[in-house]
Amino acid sequence: MSTIVSVDTGDIRFPTSLALDGSDAMNPDPDYSAAYLTIRTDAADGHEGHAFVFTIGRGNDVQVAALETLRGHLVGRDVEELLGDMGAASRLMMHDSQLRWLGPEKGVMHMAIGAAVNALWDLRAKRAGQPLWRHLASLSPEELVSLVDFRYLSDALTPEEALGILRAAEPGRADRLARLEEVGYPAYTTSPGWLGYSDEKLDRLCREAVADGFPQIKLKVGSDLDDDRRRLRIARAAVGPDFPIAIDANQRWDVSDAVDWVTALAEFDLAWIEEPTSPDDILGHAAIARGVAPVRVATGEHVQNRVVFKQLLQAGGMDVMQIDATRVGGVNENIANLLLAAKFGVPVCPHAGGVGLCEAVQHLSMFDYVAISGTMEGRMIEYVDHLHEHFVSPVVVERGRYLAPTAPGAGTEMLPESIEAYAWRGAPAEQPA
Amino acid sequence: MSTIVSVDTGDIRFPTSLALDGSDAMNPDPDYSAAYLTIRTDAADGHEGHAFVFTIGRGNDVQVAALETLRGHLVGRDVEELLGDMGAASRLMMHDSQLRWLGPEKGVMHMAIGAAVNALWDLRAKRAGQPLWRHLASLSPEELVSLVDFRYLSDALTPEEALGILRAAEPGRADRLARLEEVGYPAYTTSPGWLGYSDEKLDRLCREAVADGFPQIKLKVGSDLDDDRRRLRIARAAVGPDFPIAIDANQRWDVSDAVDWVTALAEFDLAWIEEPTSPDDILGHAAIARGVAPVRVATGEHVQNRVVFKQLLQAGGMDVMQIDATRVGGVNENIANLLLAAKFGVPVCPHAGGVGLCEAVQHLSMFDYVAISGTMEGRMIEYVDHLHEHFVSPVVVERGRYLAPTAPGAGTEMLPESIEAYAWRGAPAEQPA
Repeated sequence: MSTIVSVDTGDIRFPTSLALDGSDAMNPDPDYSAAYLTIRTDAADGHEGHAFVFTIGRGNDVQVAALETLRGHLVGRDVEELLGDMGAASRLMMHDSQLRWLGPEKGVMHMAIGAAVNALWDLRAKRAGQPLWRHLASLSPEELVSLVDFRYLSDALTPEEALGILRAAEPGRADRLARLEEVGYPAYTTSPGWLGYSDEKLDRLCREAVADGFPQIKLKVGSDLDDDRRRLRIARAAVGPDFPIAIDANQRWDVSDAVDWVTALAEFDLAWIEEPTSPDDILGHAAIARGVAPVRVATGEHVQNRVVFKQLLQAGGMDVMQIDATRVGGVNENIANLLLAAKFGVPVCPHAGGVGLCEAVQHLSMFDYVAISGTMEGRMIEYVDHLHEHFVSPVVVERGRYLAPTAPGAGTEMLPESIEAYAWRGAPAEQPA
Repeated sequence: MSTIVSVDTGDIRFPTSLALDGSDAMNPDPDYSAAYLTIRTDAADGHEGHAFVFTIGRGNDVQVAALETLRGHLVGRDVEELLGDMGAASRLMMHDSQLRWLGPEKGVMHMAIGAAVNALWDLRAKRAGQPLWRHLASLSPEELVSLVDFRYLSDALTPEEALGILRAAEPGRADRLARLEEVGYPAYTTSPGWLGYSDEKLDRLCREAVADGFPQIKLKVGSDLDDDRRRLRIARAAVGPDFPIAIDANQRWDVSDAVDWVTALAEFDLAWIEEPTSPDDILGHAAIARGVAPVRVATGEHVQNRVVFKQLLQAGGMDVMQIDATRVGGVNENIANLLLAAKFGVPVCPHAGGVGLCEAVQHLSMFDYVAISGTMEGRMIEYVDHLHEHFVSPVVVERGRYLAPTAPGAGTEMLPESIEAYAWRGAPAEQPA
């Protein structure tokens, strides 16, 4: 038997706004940040659980305060008991009615609980000596179902249906696992498309993306229609006529603006329009999807929980599901989201980038391929070439594909020297507003 | 000219769980709490802006951390400039893209910004020497429209439509103001109905509610159907056959459970079913509304922002809108909500209770009566007889009606001795989980 002896947090901020990396129509100057969590035990193996919530700067301290509040739920707990029933471990925090009031199941407190759940998964996978994707893909359909909180889902997905989906995928697991280790998982790149980049840089990065073997690129849009036309013309010329180009408005529009703007860009043959409006606007997404078809609507990086994902699917407002590793209630809630996508037959193309999101989310897509959807067809994980050097096991992307991670754990552990070097030292009020 | 010189915060918690006040199917043991904010200026008038976010205990420190983060947006600002354009003052914080990432527009960070906006309104109303309801009701339709963030609303409500609603209500303002000062605003009471109360206490409090002149009572339900039947039988016998009884499930059910449970209680002739399921489940509320009609569906106390209110109205999922004074982005976003309700012809019956929610929200209903909806027909403000003694200007409820407040300000200022006496002194991790 071992016990959790400490929960430590860190406020880590990278000054990415200096180079306009990550600039889009809603987020002109993000400083990619991590509210970081480390769980330590008294076990002789020395394994730790690491996880984080990704933010973009100011307010990262609030996210850290939310992580701090969870210490009382974790320190002193029996590790084997906690890790042995990860459904119960998640509910322990998720169903704390006093903490729940702060969401419920959304925003700062929900993301903090998600990070604590993810840190426990990191610890469990390390103890099992497996990368998280492979560890999850080794669980029985029954255990996977036990991880999911089906509250508010039963009108769209019951535990029995989930079990059916997982059992149907069981026979092919070994073959798909071998294939994944052989060829990896498709990636697409957003690196060329930030709004703050020059036309010359856009052109160059588009050509590099094609040469690097990526099957799709994505451009940020939504600040100025003429600029978007010019940039799409440059991108289309650089990548050629048949290469998929997606666009991303980062929630910039109201419903009719979205339909008009995307229609005005139709000549560029778009793969999808991402985050056309508020992530809360389910009916709005459905209206936009009807208005811009055959261009598909993609969303999810800011979708707060499984209840909103459920409705986006029910309403026909989401043609592509973009789960995020740190926005929802951790691995457990993302398994619910993956099962919903499978039920509705919608491909999952995760959001990534920021800091550590690629490292984290690749495990979910690879697990999905092996144990849920059973296919990589039409699936891709976003890839942005930033800040990977700060992780113990950085992603490896070659010829447009994420190689299957082999290191034990969830990929979420940052190097101690990076944690130290980028620790936020300013008082919140002194940070430039 | 004067300047904001300080922003102070307080973590205030009342041990209400000891008496099971406020116990319901999802929140068995709330400790009513306030994350409290005080804005001070260097003006000679000495006026301060006070506001708070209501929480139910653990995590109140996280909410305080979010308030702390706003200090940099406020300290040093020109007070007259800030208060002179409260639309801009709200956007200053709401549109901070780094803070927005933590929601967006939901949860801890959104509620904190709402409290800062409310504290500025408290200061502005005190400077004007008016209670907030009267101050808001003295503003021109154009100024009121300038307060609202119409982003994501234009498919349901445009600025022009909002102006039309406000202009149509302008001629009767003086008459309604006089009537409000004469007769007050209807209240209904939830005091009898907490799940933790004995049958004897339930019976006694129901009879007292009728004797006190309240036009409606509300009972918590959703833990056990047989218990609900027994308690509704007691309540119905106590209040008589024609007296309105509403029920509140506090998000306990999935969609089909809600329809079945409410149908099973149909014999008790229910005024409304409140929060039947997740506040995020717009399509679910619509399905429940269809399934339980003619019983009406009421919701809103946990609705995160105007975008979700918009959709609940568009989808027919909300027959009664229950705004909350501290859940959304402050007075400004609640004006958007009131305008949406007017547009869709849905009555607003605010959520109150907790600590200070009655004091705060009465101003919004009274303003709505004078300047937006123009009617009290079918409208009531929730009333719970708890913790009013801690406020500088506690609500006055007589014969089932809130009397119109006369003290300048928003009603949100707590007594200094209460702030001191109930200041949270435990470390978060030491609080009993």
